[in-house]
Amino acid sequence: MSDAQSSPSASGLATFFNDLADAARTVALTHFRSGVDFERKQDLTPVTIADQTIEQELRRMIGMRFPRHGICGEETGLTPGERFTWYLDPIDGTKSFISGMPLFGTLIALVDEEEDRVAAGMIDMPALGERWYGTAEGTTLNERPARVSRATRLEQAQIYTSSPDFFSPDDWARYDALSRKAMFRRFGGDCYLYGLLASGHCDLVVEASLKSFDFMALVPVIEGAGGVIRDWDGKALTRHSDGRVVAAANEALLEQALAFLG
Amino acid sequence: MSDAQSSPSASGLATFFNDLADAARTVALTHFRSGVDFERKQDLTPVTIADQTIEQELRRMIGMRFPRHGICGEETGLTPGERFTWYLDPIDGTKSFISGMPLFGTLIALVDEEEDRVAAGMIDMPALGERWYGTAEGTTLNERPARVSRATRLEQAQIYTSSPDFFSPDDWARYDALSRKAMFRRFGGDCYLYGLLASGHCDLVVEASLKSFDFMALVPVIEGAGGVIRDWDGKALTRHSDGRVVAAANEALLEQALAFLG
Repeated sequence: MSDAQSSPSASGLATFFNDLADAARTVALTHFRSGVDFERKQDLTPVTIADQTIEQELRRMIGMRFPRHGICGEETGLTPGERFTWYLDPIDGTKSFISGMPLFGTLIALVDEEEDRVAAGMIDMPALGERWYGTAEGTTLNERPARVSRATRLEQAQIYTSSPDFFSPDDWARYDALSRKAMFRRFGGDCYLYGLLASGHCDLVVEASLKSFDFMALVPVIEGAGGVIRDWDGKALTRHSDGRVVAAANEALLEQALAFLG
Repeated sequence: MSDAQSSPSASGLATFFNDLADAARTVALTHFRSGVDFERKQDLTPVTIADQTIEQELRRMIGMRFPRHGICGEETGLTPGERFTWYLDPIDGTKSFISGMPLFGTLIALVDEEEDRVAAGMIDMPALGERWYGTAEGTTLNERPARVSRATRLEQAQIYTSSPDFFSPDDWARYDALSRKAMFRRFGGDCYLYGLLASGHCDLVVEASLKSFDFMALVPVIEGAGGVIRDWDGKALTRHSDGRVVAAANEALLEQALAFLG
């Protein structure tokens, strides 16, 4: 990083990510299955007091530690900074969260905006006790190395997406054609699907309509585990990406997927 | 039950259900995320050594304890008996199981065939540590009472189904119309969805293509928690049902759902 104040060691950065995720987890589990109320945001997605409380707390912690960094969060939008920006999704999978389904997660990413590079990313699953952390050095699940699968043929691949409802009709037609060539397809999971892919349990994840705070954290988790993650044109994900995302265990699978999606 | 040998007390029956589910859980967790191999059955659904081992073991335990009872299992089919039949799905959600997703469960039901009544049912989620048990006396989750939600209007309801792929085009059109009127809809979960409903976290679950060993265990779990579960014509589920199932937190929601499905 660019100056002393913004230059923790790799282990210092990992510790700070863990501190952020621990704080988020405490709030999330306090409200999970508690009959938590929620209101509709303008885009009709549900938001709970948990989402808001977590983002507030993470912003506070980041502001204390890295006052010159920017923050882009789902609930409060962008607070610009110098060079580095934190991307936060306090609760990814809010519908799961509201309906007592443990497949919700907290997403945290640190992005070097000058280099368009995600320095580190975390997928934390509070109710499942699973936490993926990815950097250029690799990806871990609960501190142990995570590695993608070796499936290279679409016919062997297990493919996931969260919901058909996140696709436009045209995008759905492409996904439908692709996923019918896979060994099997399954629905539901949000950010957890990328953790499963990083750990070699599924082989392809395809989604659309993701926001930057949804996908930034996924990039180092997938890449650090040996996988690839791109937009539907095969281009690297940046804050300007259109939210159509494909993650694959390897380049061979990616190419086969892009033949349908691109 | 009809004779001394087949007449355990209510607590004796609960203990036996727990013993069965414990045995299944041990096998399931041994194979979960172990890179377990699987083959395609004739109907193209995947089956693993875990499915087969669990069913074998449960059949052995039931045969020892209730030698005159019948057993209907997913893997080995029907072994006829006198009056009572056990319905077993060793791993419901095999695709989840294979892809490292913890949303798979073991389903166990004891059916009085003379009265067409499910005496007791269990949904056990090995990887999540959650176990629902339902009888005429009520439903518990991990030994504590479970109760459905109070949502009575479709517009307030959270509706789930496992996958659009389990519906015929005509059935999907009905489900699509229904679910678009709900507060929100979400996909994925298999038997776990009925546990969430029994515990008041979601309000409606609608599925098609279920087999008797998929739905028998759900009946006492849902009804014991105060909910209702029927086929799409509003009729009680029996072994002759066509596999189209709707579960609701109450009669009011059921009626609104049947207006679309029936």
